[in-house]
Amino acid sequence: MIKISLEDERNLSMLVDFYEFTMANGYFKNNLKDKIVYFDMFFRKNPDNAGFAIVAGLEQVIEYIKGLNFTKNDIEYLRERKLFSEEFLEYLLNFKFTGDIYAIEEGTPVFPNEPLITVKAKVIEAQLIETMLLLTINHQSLIATKANRIRRAADGKEVLELGARRSQGYDAAIYGARAAYIGGVDGTANTIADEIFGVKAVGTMAHSWIQLFGDEYKAFETYAKTYPDNCVLLIDTYNVLKSGIINAIKVSKDVLEPQGNTLKGVRLDSGDLAYLSKEVRKILNINGLENCKILASNSLDEYIIADLMNQGACIDIFGVGERLITAKSEPVFGGVYKLVAVEEEGNIVPRIKLSENIEKVTNPGYKTVWRLFDKDNNKAIADVLTLGNEIIDDSKDYEIFDPIYTWKRKVVTNYYAKKIQVPIFIQGKCVYKTPKLDDIRKYSLEQVESLWDEVKRFNNPQGYYVDLSEKLWNLKNDMIKNFR
Amino acid sequence: MIKISLEDERNLSMLVDFYEFTMANGYFKNNLKDKIVYFDMFFRKNPDNAGFAIVAGLEQVIEYIKGLNFTKNDIEYLRERKLFSEEFLEYLLNFKFTGDIYAIEEGTPVFPNEPLITVKAKVIEAQLIETMLLLTINHQSLIATKANRIRRAADGKEVLELGARRSQGYDAAIYGARAAYIGGVDGTANTIADEIFGVKAVGTMAHSWIQLFGDEYKAFETYAKTYPDNCVLLIDTYNVLKSGIINAIKVSKDVLEPQGNTLKGVRLDSGDLAYLSKEVRKILNINGLENCKILASNSLDEYIIADLMNQGACIDIFGVGERLITAKSEPVFGGVYKLVAVEEEGNIVPRIKLSENIEKVTNPGYKTVWRLFDKDNNKAIADVLTLGNEIIDDSKDYEIFDPIYTWKRKVVTNYYAKKIQVPIFIQGKCVYKTPKLDDIRKYSLEQVESLWDEVKRFNNPQGYYVDLSEKLWNLKNDMIKNFR
Repeated sequence: MIKISLEDERNLSMLVDFYEFTMANGYFKNNLKDKIVYFDMFFRKNPDNAGFAIVAGLEQVIEYIKGLNFTKNDIEYLRERKLFSEEFLEYLLNFKFTGDIYAIEEGTPVFPNEPLITVKAKVIEAQLIETMLLLTINHQSLIATKANRIRRAADGKEVLELGARRSQGYDAAIYGARAAYIGGVDGTANTIADEIFGVKAVGTMAHSWIQLFGDEYKAFETYAKTYPDNCVLLIDTYNVLKSGIINAIKVSKDVLEPQGNTLKGVRLDSGDLAYLSKEVRKILNINGLENCKILASNSLDEYIIADLMNQGACIDIFGVGERLITAKSEPVFGGVYKLVAVEEEGNIVPRIKLSENIEKVTNPGYKTVWRLFDKDNNKAIADVLTLGNEIIDDSKDYEIFDPIYTWKRKVVTNYYAKKIQVPIFIQGKCVYKTPKLDDIRKYSLEQVESLWDEVKRFNNPQGYYVDLSEKLWNLKNDMIKNFR
Repeated sequence: MIKISLEDERNLSMLVDFYEFTMANGYFKNNLKDKIVYFDMFFRKNPDNAGFAIVAGLEQVIEYIKGLNFTKNDIEYLRERKLFSEEFLEYLLNFKFTGDIYAIEEGTPVFPNEPLITVKAKVIEAQLIETMLLLTINHQSLIATKANRIRRAADGKEVLELGARRSQGYDAAIYGARAAYIGGVDGTANTIADEIFGVKAVGTMAHSWIQLFGDEYKAFETYAKTYPDNCVLLIDTYNVLKSGIINAIKVSKDVLEPQGNTLKGVRLDSGDLAYLSKEVRKILNINGLENCKILASNSLDEYIIADLMNQGACIDIFGVGERLITAKSEPVFGGVYKLVAVEEEGNIVPRIKLSENIEKVTNPGYKTVWRLFDKDNNKAIADVLTLGNEIIDDSKDYEIFDPIYTWKRKVVTNYYAKKIQVPIFIQGKCVYKTPKLDDIRKYSLEQVESLWDEVKRFNNPQGYYVDLSEKLWNLKNDMIKNFR
């Protein structure tokens, strides 16, 4: 059951692509329901041609898997479709997930073609969770990745997520705020995200406050008297420099300062933010309001923030709305979920999906994902996919090579190797405790620090190595040849 | 309470931008809580530079308003923020919406700058519904608009919505499927959207079905035996022309036709869909399978579909995923919610929001939205915004003029005028019965027919007139002058 408010949970077991049911009924009818299979969830390309992504959403995947069950109404709906056997519907009524799930922890920087999640389960179980697993990880990873870009563009300034009203549905606002926080924003405008997840919600006034009074000074004065400790004023309803900042300062002098308070901030929501913020900063400083912060918003994203920073804009806090909450520049995180192996008589038999496009050919078999770190500076050197039973012995040098241009080789020395997938469910039992959201965020920001600057560049970043072990590479190539 | 599955509803009253609470507490403290105000929800630009949009989401706005209430836990959360008075928190605990709401019905083609929704309510009530109202209408209108474009590109062919796994959160999948259906898609892959809304869910098999068997013929044969009446086969797991279509036809001959059945369809999910669909069509026809349909999917949208149609692709059904469910080409519907008037001693006093940008200056006052139709052919001629108490008497000619280039004038004759907003809530009571989803869809497709082709063009459509009455135009200009 997925939490949607303090009181409510919901059962999204029927959020399934219909073909999962037709296939499941087919497996059931053909005595394949207990067949053990392995699926990998991975993505093929970083959004925005970035050098990496941030994975997020695992907590919601876990909640979903734990609560997974079909109600009598669900079964009745399926029965009316007249496609499914009664035995299968009976099986669904008692359905639960009994398999194993391994995953890379939330907040970790991740790269194309590595399994973010590996599922080992009876085929029907592995198949029925596909849609929700992809949806959850795709959505939250998209937003966490975008938020991290925006945070890095802001270069130490505060960033707030303000996008609820332009988001693609209620969950986009709720889980989007959660994912944005993992990626590195500092707060949200969305109250329910604070109530449920503790992402600090902030906000003061809209233009309507000023319009209601009709008189900007009167509107500011009333607000200052209502919130003397925490007065942030929106100064662009009529004219920032001729009216807004003048009235704001007057209210600070007339109302706040005589009481020992001071104006905490002013907010700009339109116009040229570089020019206006510099002018407003000057005027504030001349009036002894050096500590008054300037918040700015208006269709911001990492590119515009980077430009504003370059132009010396005096902005202390960036409010980012629609371009973060929809990841507007590239609003799809293209994770896929592919069958990589089946168990036959106790053996793991790899499977492959071919394609006209070499990059779309899947990496077959049950695999382990390793990250190699430099022992001296803890920087990430490369990720390596190996067969499941392979070990990377980090007491010895290790040669990595590009899986397409195989002559590109590098011997890694002075490193330590870490398996980056961890067990989440074993035989249907959850063995993982989700860290607190603040800890996920902290971990994520630390892990991003482990990447070289070349990988973090916004434009044309250096590709990070995600290589295959010699054995895995040979397996893949043999399978491709055999199909020809 | 908003429906999220057959059994569950949820309370999203706390999905509110935090500043609504800080303002509301301010209004409360300053004895302004019963002040009557008017807000308009409108948008400024059609997504994708289109000629029009399709409004959707009203049913969910109604469910939200009806269920709007704050729980004790919500109040406790707010109390801990130490910003709000106890009297205000007590007021919130008994909060309900008691105002009036007028809206343009779901499925109607709409245009920039006209009020899709007008709210007349006590200021706190009008303010607290802002976030959910914008979120709901922005999201569903975005997807309905995109779906309608895709439907028109497909030019009579069937279109299926397959995007759940790439959507931005669970609601994006659920309400996205609903909105896409209003816009004109014919079905969805998302089972829960069928269960809740009756958007027919369809689907047969994924690549994993074929991979599990390892042998494509065996996989197809098993499927055909399981679903002899409804056999649609995915033919691109290995190689469409050398393997997939050959095995599909063999199964039709070996398994289906001897039983009096036939292959219903084949699906392509990769490769050049124009070339492959034409080749597959030829091979099917040679084998007497003229009625076997060809489904195609793979990152489709209205532009690619239009190109495929131009190239004579033999595709009967288009499956559209991520580019529809995220409206990828422009993933934001920028609806805003602006204060336009306040009541003072029983009079409606207009308010305006100025801006450096003339197009961002709001249309002040309580208004009526009219659509003028040609009496001969029922084509929409223009929309006109008038003051609330103005009447357009369609027994007389009516002169419209461009609100920016005011010398552009046109006298409309032989027309009828229709108010396109209808009452939804009056004094907090819902007075509107939401039509059935199929009826909304039918109405929407009919209304799109009322637009001239010039407005429906994908590139550089003719701008549709949304004009102001002389009185409204004068009011706006006087208010702008007065502020200078």
